[in-house]
Formats: sequence, C-alpha cells, structure tokens
Amino acid sequence: MRRFIVLGHTAPTDPDFDLDDLAGGAGRLDVLARCVNSAFFLSHAIRENVRVYLVLSDTVTIKIEGVELRYMNPDERNIASLLRQALEARADAIGHSEVESTPGIYVSNRGFEPVLKAAAREGAIVQLHEDGDPLASVEPPENPAFVLSDHLDFTAAESELLREYADYRVSVGPKALHADHTISVVHNYLDTDGYSF
Amino acid sequence: MRRFIVLGHTAPTDPDFDLDDLAGGAGRLDVLARCVNSAFFLSHAIRENVRVYLVLSDTVTIKIEGVELRYMNPDERNIASLLRQALEARADAIGHSEVESTPGIYVSNRGFEPVLKAAAREGAIVQLHEDGDPLASVEPPENPAFVLSDHLDFTAAESELLREYADYRVSVGPKALHADHTISVVHNYLDTDGYSF
Repeated sequence: MRRFIVLGHTAPTDPDFDLDDLAGGAGRLDVLARCVNSAFFLSHAIRENVRVYLVLSDTVTIKIEGVELRYMNPDERNIASLLRQALEARADAIGHSEVESTPGIYVSNRGFEPVLKAAAREGAIVQLHEDGDPLASVEPPENPAFVLSDHLDFTAAESELLREYADYRVSVGPKALHADHTISVVHNYLDTDGYSF
Repeated sequence: MRRFIVLGHTAPTDPDFDLDDLAGGAGRLDVLARCVNSAFFLSHAIRENVRVYLVLSDTVTIKIEGVELRYMNPDERNIASLLRQALEARADAIGHSEVESTPGIYVSNRGFEPVLKAAAREGAIVQLHEDGDPLASVEPPENPAFVLSDHLDFTAAESELLREYADYRVSVGPKALHADHTISVVHNYLDTDGYSF
C-alpha cells in the first residue's frame, strides 16, 4: 500500500464553493484535485494500492481508497465535484467517525494530528520536503505514507508533529515541485523499484 | 532547452468549446492542459528553459515558450482559456506562419509532420512509449524534444514518422502513465541529471 497525506491549508471544509472557481473562491482546491489525479490515475486504470488523505484546513479529512474508487475522471472539475459530495456528507460524520460519500471516498472531522498518528501505526512516515535527503538515496520503505504540503509550506505546528513522527525526510530533486508533480515522481520511484527498472 | 511535443488526437481546432466541459465537449482538452501544467510549473516559478508544442488533431499547433510565458495559472480551466485564446487568434495565421495570442503562446496551421521535422533540426527526438528502453538507461541528450501521445496511442502514421525521426524510444517505467505524469518524471530525470542528484 502507498499512502499520501496532503495538507490543504486553505481548502474549504463546507461544500458551498463554485466548481468554476476552484483556484480562487474554492481555496485552491485545484491543487488537491491534481494531487488526487497524480495519486490514482494510470493510463486506462486506477492504482488500487493507493490511499490518499486530504487534510482540509486541519479540520476535515477526506480519505480516498483506490481499490474501492468509482466514478472518478481525471479532470480537476470532476475530482472537485466528488470532493464537494464528500463535504456534503460531512454533516453525518459524528466525532472522528467516517462517512462514505461515494464509493471509496470517506469524510471525517479530523485534523492532521490524528490522521498522522493513525498513519504512523501502519507504516513508515516519509515527509517530502525540498531540504530532505535525495529520494534516490533512500531504500523504498514498506507501506510508506508520504506527507506533502499544498502550495504553502508546512506550518510550524505541522513541522513539529513531523519531527516527532516522520521516519524519513526526503527531497525528490534540486527543484521545488508542485505536490502533484512530486507524487508522480514518488510513484515512478516505487514503480521502478528505486530506478532499477 | 527541453522541448515537449504532445499529440492531442481529439483536441478542438476552433475556440467554440465550453470551459466547463473540457473532458467532454472540448475533446479532452483537459489532458493537454495538464501536460502544459507539468511542463512549465515549478513551486512559485515557471520553467523558462521549456518549449511545448501541442498538436491539435494534426491540424493546428500551439507553441508555448516558457521564457516568454505570462498570465498562466496552473489550474486546467485557466490553461484551457489561454489555449482557447490561441485558437481565436488562429484566424490571423496564414500558411505555416505563427501568430502570438498572449505572451509566449503562438498558434499556427501545422500538423505533426512539419512540427517534428523542424524539431529534429534543433536536437534529439525522444519518443516516449511504454515499450521503449528504460529512461534511466539513457544518457540525457542535448536539447531533447520528447514526443508524447495524449489518452490515445500514437496512430500508424505518427508511428511511421517517429520511426524515421526519433533518435531514442524510451519508457519511464513498467506502468503506462498519463502524458502529464510522464512529463513530471522526465523533468525529474533531467533535474537530477539522471538520478545522480
């Protein structure tokens, strides 16, 4: 299983946004939609061994399970519409419990800390950061959970949590990349078994 | 200079499409918009050493120069709106001449063959194909032009041209990827100087 935790610092936690304005009024939900695309889509297939957690404004988490995922197309608008349906279903999520909005998509009232702690119990935590060790120098860990930030840097509180929980701090190269591009690079690194393909 | 030639087999050649329906009525222009995103965007910067050719239905070519590019945001809708402006400017393009629609974006009435022949005169042609040699086994060429297909495979005629003009035929890994994800992987390969970063 490959897991990705993406922190959306300005992302909406309610469904009252316009699909025509993802990059503006919807708090850069376009960034998260592209991360979902990179995480799941292969040419004419879905990566079934992937799970994504989108942490929205440290308040709401949308979990997406590749093996269960249905009805998703790769365009930003379609992905955002599924995320909006998840936020509509949030009204039924009590405490930290999850509600499934469409097949494979779950919403809960959880911020970063409980998501990170739960993920750490299931495998290695890998923080992706431009100041980390080169990806190619790291042996691919078992059942990794990669933690990425959106268009903004990790906050001080997030960095503090990651200092405690991250097993690795890794950079994909000398250029600072968008989160979705980073996910494509990480997938390729794992697909090729550390570029030994 | 890194060059990317992306073949959009169902892409529109006229601007009468709806930005709300890129994945449907606009002939999968969403696929090409994502390729433009992957080709140019860094975190808070544009890759100035990149040039992209989008070949639309083997009829119209939109050329985008990173060093001149302005007014582009990374979301599909914004990129598609700039491509639509290029198609609006197409009425002024006579013969194979180019017209600049917005800074760094040029349109011409050219199909794949003239674009490929011109690109071959300026550096190595690298066909990206799932049956090619592993990317990591190829020394990064000077001034490469990477040729990718959209959500459909290369046609027989395109494959024939590439047999004649391509210097390399390369695969990025054992999984068949979307074109935009492939561009992210290629950039990372070149950014890290063949993963030696």
